Amino acid sequence: MKSFEEMTKEELLKEKESLEQAYRDYQKRGLSLNMARGKPANNQLDLANPMMDALTSESDFSCADGDVRNYGVLAGITEAREFFAEILQCDKDEVILGGSASLTLMYDTISRSYTHGVLGETPWCKQDKLKFLCPVPGYDRHFAITEHFGIEMINIPLTEDGPDMDMVEKYVNNDPAVKGIWCVPKYANPTGVTYSDETVKRFAALKPAAKDFRIFWDNAYCEHHLYPEQDQLLSIMDECKKNHTEDMVYIFASTSKMSMAGSGISAMALSKRNREDVLKQMGIQMISYDKVNQLRHIRFFKNVEGLRNHMKEHAKILKPKFDLLEKVFDEELKGCGAGQWTTPHGGYFITYTTMDGCAKRVIELCKEAGMVMTGAGAPFPYKKDEHDSTIRIAPSLPPIEELEIASHLFVVCVKLATVEKLIG
Amino acid sequence: MKSFEEMTKEELLKEKESLEQAYRDYQKRGLSLNMARGKPANNQLDLANPMMDALTSESDFSCADGDVRNYGVLAGITEAREFFAEILQCDKDEVILGGSASLTLMYDTISRSYTHGVLGETPWCKQDKLKFLCPVPGYDRHFAITEHFGIEMINIPLTEDGPDMDMVEKYVNNDPAVKGIWCVPKYANPTGVTYSDETVKRFAALKPAAKDFRIFWDNAYCEHHLYPEQDQLLSIMDECKKNHTEDMVYIFASTSKMSMAGSGISAMALSKRNREDVLKQMGIQMISYDKVNQLRHIRFFKNVEGLRNHMKEHAKILKPKFDLLEKVFDEELKGCGAGQWTTPHGGYFITYTTMDGCAKRVIELCKEAGMVMTGAGAPFPYKKDEHDSTIRIAPSLPPIEELEIASHLFVVCVKLATVEKLIG
Repeated sequence: MKSFEEMTKEELLKEKESLEQAYRDYQKRGLSLNMARGKPANNQLDLANPMMDALTSESDFSCADGDVRNYGVLAGITEAREFFAEILQCDKDEVILGGSASLTLMYDTISRSYTHGVLGETPWCKQDKLKFLCPVPGYDRHFAITEHFGIEMINIPLTEDGPDMDMVEKYVNNDPAVKGIWCVPKYANPTGVTYSDETVKRFAALKPAAKDFRIFWDNAYCEHHLYPEQDQLLSIMDECKKNHTEDMVYIFASTSKMSMAGSGISAMALSKRNREDVLKQMGIQMISYDKVNQLRHIRFFKNVEGLRNHMKEHAKILKPKFDLLEKVFDEELKGCGAGQWTTPHGGYFITYTTMDGCAKRVIELCKEAGMVMTGAGAPFPYKKDEHDSTIRIAPSLPPIEELEIASHLFVVCVKLATVEKLIG
Repeated sequence: MKSFEEMTKEELLKEKESLEQAYRDYQKRGLSLNMARGKPANNQLDLANPMMDALTSESDFSCADGDVRNYGVLAGITEAREFFAEILQCDKDEVILGGSASLTLMYDTISRSYTHGVLGETPWCKQDKLKFLCPVPGYDRHFAITEHFGIEMINIPLTEDGPDMDMVEKYVNNDPAVKGIWCVPKYANPTGVTYSDETVKRFAALKPAAKDFRIFWDNAYCEHHLYPEQDQLLSIMDECKKNHTEDMVYIFASTSKMSMAGSGISAMALSKRNREDVLKQMGIQMISYDKVNQLRHIRFFKNVEGLRNHMKEHAKILKPKFDLLEKVFDEELKGCGAGQWTTPHGGYFITYTTMDGCAKRVIELCKEAGMVMTGAGAPFPYKKDEHDSTIRIAPSLPPIEELEIASHLFVVCVKLATVEKLIG
C-alpha cells in the first residue's frame, strides 16, 4: 500500500473522494455506536450474576470481625482485606476497604490532604503552590480531581517502560510544591504500558523534596489480562520497604471491572503510619463502608485464585474485541501513514496516535456518523493534547458485530482526516 | 418514697451502704452489657434478611435508568429517588442517593463547602472564622465532623419544641461566621424530641447573615416510630419554598436502621440549585454509588408503604425494650430525686438527666460493673457537658433478658452516684 504522504495531490484528492463516499454511506446507516468509556459489556456483567446468590436470606452473615449486617469495622472485614492484600502485593494490615469505587478513595485521599494535611504536614489548602506530575497520556478522571483542587499539573511523557523517570526524579527530588504523581502502573489507561522493574525501583528510591509527596499508584487493571502470559509488575510496597520509603505510596484497586461496575468493592493499601492517619480521619466520615457487599464478594470469589479464574472468562469476551480491532487496523491502516496503535496485553484501551493535528477531526467525523469516542484531549491534563494526535479507543462495550462496523468506520474517519490534513 | 434530698446524713449513709452492697453483687456477676450505641439488635437485622433474595442471578437488573450493574447514573436510580422523596417530603428531582451511610453525605457536604465553597461563595477554608450552632444534647458524630474541620461550635439549648429559636435567629440572622446548624428534627438523638410546626416555620423563615449558611436537617429517625400514633413533622422543604429559602436546607436520611446498618442506602434532598452544584462536584469524586444495592432495596421494600409495614416489625422489637426501661425507672427511681428521663415516641435513645455533677460517676460505676454506656459528655460539642448530668441510653442492642439486668444495674449506679454526691 502506498502511504498517503507518498501520494501526489491528485492521488490524494481521488482518495479523499472515495473516502467521503464511504463516509457518507456510513452516515446514511443511522448508526449508534459507542467506544467512549471503558465499560464492561453485558455478557461480562452476566459473569457476576451468580454473586447475587452468594448471600441469601438463609446465609450466615458472620465474618472474622462479627456480624457484617451491623455497624462497625471501619477498615473493612478481614477476609476482604486479605483478598486485596494478595492482589495489591502487600500485607492485610496495610489495606483499607472502600465503597463501590476506588476513584472515591483517591478523591477522598486528595481531599483529606487538602483539608487536614498528610501525616501532620501543613494542609494543602494552607500551602501556596501545589503541583502534581501527570504521565501522559493518562486517565481523565485522575486529572479532573487534581484540576478540581486547583493543583497545577505537569505532563510527564510515558515511555514503553513507564513515565520518563529522569523527569520524575528531577521534579520530585527538587521541587517541594510537587505533592504527587498519578500512576496506572499495569496495562495503563490508555496506552496499555506496564511499568518496568527498573521504573518501579526508581519510584521506590525517590527522595522527595516535599515530606507530603505521595505516589498515587492506581493499579486498576492489575488482574485484567488479555493473554495467558501476563505482564509482571514489581510490588511497589516491597520495593519501598527496601528503601524505607513505604510512607510515600498509596495503592488503589477495585473490583469494578471484575464483579459489577455499578456495585464493586474498592481498596487502598498504605504503610501502617499512613493507614493509622487515614483511618483516624475516615472515622469522622463514616462508620464503615458496605460490609455485606464485602462479604458477598468474598463468598463469591472465595479467594484470589477464584478471582483469577473469573478474569479468564472476562478475557475470553474481551480479547476477541481487541483482536478484531488489531486485525482491521493491520489490514486497512498498516503502511498508509495514518498513525499507529497500541497492542496491549491487558486493560481496557487501545491508544491510537494519528498524524499530528488530526485527532479532534477524527473524533468529530466519528460523531457525525453516529459513533461516540472519548473526547479529544481527554487523556491529557486540562484536556490539552498539544499534538492533537491521541485517541483513546474503548472496545469493551459494543457487541462484536457492532465493533466490526465501528472499526471500519473508524478507519474511514482516520484516513479521511489524514487526507484532509495533507491536502491542507 | 422519700427523696434523697429529704434524707438525713445518717439515712443517706445507710442507703449508701445498702447500694454499695447491691453494686458489689452486680460486680461479682462478671457482666458484659452494652447500652452505648444505637445499634439494631440481631432480630431487627433478621427482618431484612429476605432482602438478600430480592436480587438473584436470575433477576432483571434494569431500572428506569438502564442496567444497574454498569457504570453511570451519578444521582442514583429514579426508583430509589422517588422512594426517598416520599420519606423526605420533597420532589424526586431534589434527591441525590448516597452510599451506606448518611454520615458520609454530611461529612462530604461539609468537606465540599470547606474546599470549594457553597454555591459560588468563598470556600470555608479561605474564610477567617467558621461557626456552627449545635442544639444540645445532640449527636456526637455531628459534632465530631464540625470539630474535625476546626469549626467553632455554639451550644443551643434543646427545648420540648426543638432548638431555642430565639437564640438560633439571633445567631443566624446576625453573625456571618455562622455557617450551619445540626438538627435531628424527629425523635432527636438523644432526647426523642420532635420539632414543633412553629419551630420548623421559624427555621424556614431565617434570614441568614451568611449566604452560605445551611441547615443540616438530619432526619435520621423519620420512620422510626414506637407507637401507632406518630409524631408529625412539617416538611421543611415545603416551608422553605413558601419563604423562597429552599437553598438554605440540606435534608439527610438513610435505611441504616431500616434494612441493615452495615449495608443500607442513604440520601440527601436539596434545592435544584444546590443539587446541581453538588452533583457537579460529586461527579469528580465518583461515577455513582452502589446502584445494585439501590435496586435491591426498592425490590425488597417495593414502596414507602412496604417500608412502613417493615418499620412496624422493628417497633414490635424495640418498644418492649423502651417499655422495660421506663417501667423499671418508674418503679425504682420515681420520686427519689436522682434525676429525670425522657419517654420518646420513636428513635433509638432515652436521655437520662442526673443530679448535676453525677453523670460521669454513673457511667464510671456502670463500666466497673461490666456495662458500657455512651461516654460522659458525648452528646455535647467538645464532649463538654457543663452540668455533668446527661446520659444517653441506647436500649436497642441487648436482648430483653440482658436489658432487664442492665436497667436494674443502671438504677443502682444512678442512686449510688446521687447519694455519694449528697454526702459530699
